[in-house]
Amino acid sequence: MSWSAAQYTKFERERTRPVRDLLLQIPVEDAKTAVDLGCGPGNSTELLKARFPNAAITGMDSSSDMIEAARKRMPDIHFEIDDIATWHQPGPFDVIFANASLQWVPDHARLLPTLMEKLAPGGSLAVQMPDNLDEPAHQLMAKVGREGPWAKKIEQAETARVKRQSPDWYYRILGTGGAQVDLWRTVYFHPLAGGAPAVVEWFKATGLRPYLTPLDEAERKDYLAKYEAEIALAYPALPNGTVVLPFPRLFFVATR
Amino acid sequence: MSWSAAQYTKFERERTRPVRDLLLQIPVEDAKTAVDLGCGPGNSTELLKARFPNAAITGMDSSSDMIEAARKRMPDIHFEIDDIATWHQPGPFDVIFANASLQWVPDHARLLPTLMEKLAPGGSLAVQMPDNLDEPAHQLMAKVGREGPWAKKIEQAETARVKRQSPDWYYRILGTGGAQVDLWRTVYFHPLAGGAPAVVEWFKATGLRPYLTPLDEAERKDYLAKYEAEIALAYPALPNGTVVLPFPRLFFVATR
Repeated sequence: MSWSAAQYTKFERERTRPVRDLLLQIPVEDAKTAVDLGCGPGNSTELLKARFPNAAITGMDSSSDMIEAARKRMPDIHFEIDDIATWHQPGPFDVIFANASLQWVPDHARLLPTLMEKLAPGGSLAVQMPDNLDEPAHQLMAKVGREGPWAKKIEQAETARVKRQSPDWYYRILGTGGAQVDLWRTVYFHPLAGGAPAVVEWFKATGLRPYLTPLDEAERKDYLAKYEAEIALAYPALPNGTVVLPFPRLFFVATR
Repeated sequence: MSWSAAQYTKFERERTRPVRDLLLQIPVEDAKTAVDLGCGPGNSTELLKARFPNAAITGMDSSSDMIEAARKRMPDIHFEIDDIATWHQPGPFDVIFANASLQWVPDHARLLPTLMEKLAPGGSLAVQMPDNLDEPAHQLMAKVGREGPWAKKIEQAETARVKRQSPDWYYRILGTGGAQVDLWRTVYFHPLAGGAPAVVEWFKATGLRPYLTPLDEAERKDYLAKYEAEIALAYPALPNGTVVLPFPRLFFVATR
């Protein structure tokens, strides 16, 4: 089960809202160079281009499926397959943009200063990460994982995502060297028509991937059925069948 | 101690960020009529005017000090002294804007439908309210209030602010009649240089008002000293003396 472009774009309007919210807080007026780290199918890159129309933009993702979709979507942008953890482009960049990608990259204490050093003077590192590991939806992924016959197969899944640090930690690590730091956390309450199955669909493209990837087709079906039953209990629907899904995300913009 | 315009504008950059964030999510393209409920000294009204330059805008607040400051700031806008709870303008309005004001108005189950009915078709009710009653800064206001010789004098203070409802509640009450509801909650992490005294300054203009207003000068000084000591313990400073103050706010935009 790959990082599927088709699955990811199902909730495009909801998923691009944080991208727009992040872009709006970047104080750079007119970027000449920008990079989109973990660009996925290019929805974030498209908005980055609209915000900085004069910038030479590179989109980067580790998934060939995603890069293929992104190239189709924006033939004029340079997209490349690479890994954020080992990315070695020296810069300088006016904007380094990372939307919903750094939560998969370990060792932020090393990573973030490295990215800050690639900024041009006045440049911004702009990051958004899901911050939902403590939400029932995530806790239940782990619970269903531990309680099934697949427990051994997917024991790595719980540690696939990086735990976020405290706000003070981000201020200290990003603010070293005098950078201006803007930090906030938003919980979006997404009304999902269709109840529990819609919640499961939502997470299939993202949080569930480390749980589903190691399973075979039959196990996957079984896992998802158990997960959906737990979700239905944890997220009761409104009378019209809609589930209001809280989705917390952490944002920061650090400007040299 | 009145709802002081001078005190409130001390942190203008931080306090206008939520105003801008709220304005950006209003889907109305070109409003002809808009009202700013609880406009304070007019900083929100100024941004509302910039967002909807063609709208006839009314700014309204219950404080004559605030309205005076707002009129000085924007002589071309119509400002009036009135009370949100008993406001009887029938509308219709393209935008009803209420930034950091409805938390002082009781009975939202009655208030919100009344405001929705004043909207023109396609119009939006856009609301932001501090959602920090559970934060240490607020809990400590109450604690210092209960533990001092002034306890009896300010026992009403804890109930001055309206408790927020659940996200599901807002969806149901605002969505009745088919309105589109956009709901989110953001915690802004404000780095306040100057540590605990700066945190106290921050709340003097807002959350502390119900606690300070009933006190005489000497009690106020004593209350603030005790409060500052508690704040210093609850919000440890970074090595450079800055306190990172988390400030949660609830937002919604309901569009007919």
